[in-house]
Amino acid sequence: MDIGKNNVTHPCKLYHLLAIKQVVGLSESRYNLTMMKLSQLGELGLIELITEILNKSGVGGASQRDVVIGSGDDAAAWHSQGLELGTTDALIQGVHFSVDNFTWEELGWKALAVNISDIAAMGGSPSYALVSLGLPPDTEVENVVALCHGMCAIAQEFNLAIIGGNIVEAPLLIISPSVIGRAGNSILTRSAALTGDKVAVTGFLGSSAAGLRMLQAGLKFDAEIASHIGQAHLRPYPRVAEGISLAQHGVQAAIDVSDGLIADLQKICQASKVAAQVWVNKVPIHPLVQAAFKEDSLQLALYGGEDYELLFTAKEEVIKQAEGVMSSKLTLIGDVVAAEPGQVTLLDETGEVVAWERGGWEHFKR
Amino acid sequence: MDIGKNNVTHPCKLYHLLAIKQVVGLSESRYNLTMMKLSQLGELGLIELITEILNKSGVGGASQRDVVIGSGDDAAAWHSQGLELGTTDALIQGVHFSVDNFTWEELGWKALAVNISDIAAMGGSPSYALVSLGLPPDTEVENVVALCHGMCAIAQEFNLAIIGGNIVEAPLLIISPSVIGRAGNSILTRSAALTGDKVAVTGFLGSSAAGLRMLQAGLKFDAEIASHIGQAHLRPYPRVAEGISLAQHGVQAAIDVSDGLIADLQKICQASKVAAQVWVNKVPIHPLVQAAFKEDSLQLALYGGEDYELLFTAKEEVIKQAEGVMSSKLTLIGDVVAAEPGQVTLLDETGEVVAWERGGWEHFKR
Repeated sequence: MDIGKNNVTHPCKLYHLLAIKQVVGLSESRYNLTMMKLSQLGELGLIELITEILNKSGVGGASQRDVVIGSGDDAAAWHSQGLELGTTDALIQGVHFSVDNFTWEELGWKALAVNISDIAAMGGSPSYALVSLGLPPDTEVENVVALCHGMCAIAQEFNLAIIGGNIVEAPLLIISPSVIGRAGNSILTRSAALTGDKVAVTGFLGSSAAGLRMLQAGLKFDAEIASHIGQAHLRPYPRVAEGISLAQHGVQAAIDVSDGLIADLQKICQASKVAAQVWVNKVPIHPLVQAAFKEDSLQLALYGGEDYELLFTAKEEVIKQAEGVMSSKLTLIGDVVAAEPGQVTLLDETGEVVAWERGGWEHFKR
Repeated sequence: MDIGKNNVTHPCKLYHLLAIKQVVGLSESRYNLTMMKLSQLGELGLIELITEILNKSGVGGASQRDVVIGSGDDAAAWHSQGLELGTTDALIQGVHFSVDNFTWEELGWKALAVNISDIAAMGGSPSYALVSLGLPPDTEVENVVALCHGMCAIAQEFNLAIIGGNIVEAPLLIISPSVIGRAGNSILTRSAALTGDKVAVTGFLGSSAAGLRMLQAGLKFDAEIASHIGQAHLRPYPRVAEGISLAQHGVQAAIDVSDGLIADLQKICQASKVAAQVWVNKVPIHPLVQAAFKEDSLQLALYGGEDYELLFTAKEEVIKQAEGVMSSKLTLIGDVVAAEPGQVTLLDETGEVVAWERGGWEHFKR
């Protein structure tokens, strides 16, 4: 696994450098393009470069379904009909990431992934992104190209058009996208959990937090573990297909796990005015995480966050039907119960209450 | 004019303090609420407080037209039909503003105003906003309340629903909204200017740049001048009605003046592959700005930016027809001509070419 800084290994890299050269109108003999700073290229040159990258990647909206005006005007325009979804979530340097841990390409992917995940948690599919970028003037142009490349990669993966945005100077790196999506006939909400529902989750929990711990503490693992937990943290894969399938099968209550399983389950319980019990021995933890983090792995799974799996509640038979047609693993981990609204209780395999260790991530409070 | 820091004089202030008290569940005897920091309230308390302020102001989308899900879920949802518009533009502390010049209420107003102005420049009307906020932990809760209040005020003014967003910790204040709007039967674009069109602009130019110069240099003016130029900079009023009216009367090419008249006219010319001539003596400068800044006022009007007036081109008879039904002043300031695409030439009253002094605002280049 490659977690080095600024390491862009995609075959399109050469094309991007060529694009920089064309846009800037400079021959390589005059400037070392791999060291060029934004302060040399300027805002207008950068916008032209990014627009060209988006359009050549086919995600700029120029030839896209329903897009009337893509990036380059005061606003984007698209034909719309039905139920639309909108969300925004920012990544800020030093708060959400360190450029020592992420490549710029991974940052581009993740910034859109966390927004796409919000659309997935509503049972919708992503359509359009507007991206607001803040960049320091001494940023290397090549890094911004890599950032765009990461955005293009996830946009292609989820058939998302990047139709607008803005770029401003900032003292640190800020990536603040908004994603517009389309809902199907029914929407998943936080407020639809009912007493008697089972609590369930897609995939595995704790892998992303394990990856973060590895990166921050410089832990060494074998390649398979390092790759699994590194990718979970650096390149999360939003559960769009799973959200759509859950909504189609009659699931009504869901959230994506971003702040941690327990913190996010509390949010469902608060919004739905119900309580929940979680059997901690049922919480799905990947075998590689268990192998690497032993007894710590449960804490990572309960409180770690940034999993971007879907946490949902429904009648058991609804979940069983959905499971039959999904490629993603579904695990029943608890029950929605009638107790104090918002309360989440942890139970061990004997039914004994387990004390909480700590809550999930909350900004401003440490 | 009041340009003092953190000076919230709105009658709703008391209500907001009460709301803080209710949400936080603390009596005033335990905490001095006017000094409470975000680090004491926490992210979840802050979200609850902001949601309550938005809903009580009637702009939270809870009871709003077409809104199915307002703020508080993973994404907002709304019923949509027709042509939608989307834009995003961020304000970053130290780059776009200083908290020494703006009240927090003015920042809230302006952050949405610059986005609404982009919708106006397409001839559309704003519908929904998603607001991504980055706030330092030592921010006073009362300031965030004032910021929300400024957003609520402009949302009420333009019938905009604030239906979602996110709040994260950041080392400096970041306000990154996205605004979704609706277009009518025709859209104003940057790429529709034609040779033979007249160049025209709504309102006056240079007042905002004059206000910024006053604030930055601590210049003293009489109350009327200080109020006019201060408000132009701190509380710009987007030309939504004007944009709709221009589109209805057959205008097709427009941009809002954010980077400066000449810089933005260049953008129209580049997108439309035409050139333009501007008669500098026709550029509309407010008498109060002329009185205060004398011969400097033309430079402010040509290059100052942040006017948020609409700059547009159309046949002269189309402009005359539109002018008849608009409350806003329209001024013909030049011609679209067949010359090198993107080129803007300044002419004095005798037809002599005037040399440019400097370009408009461009990020990364100083």
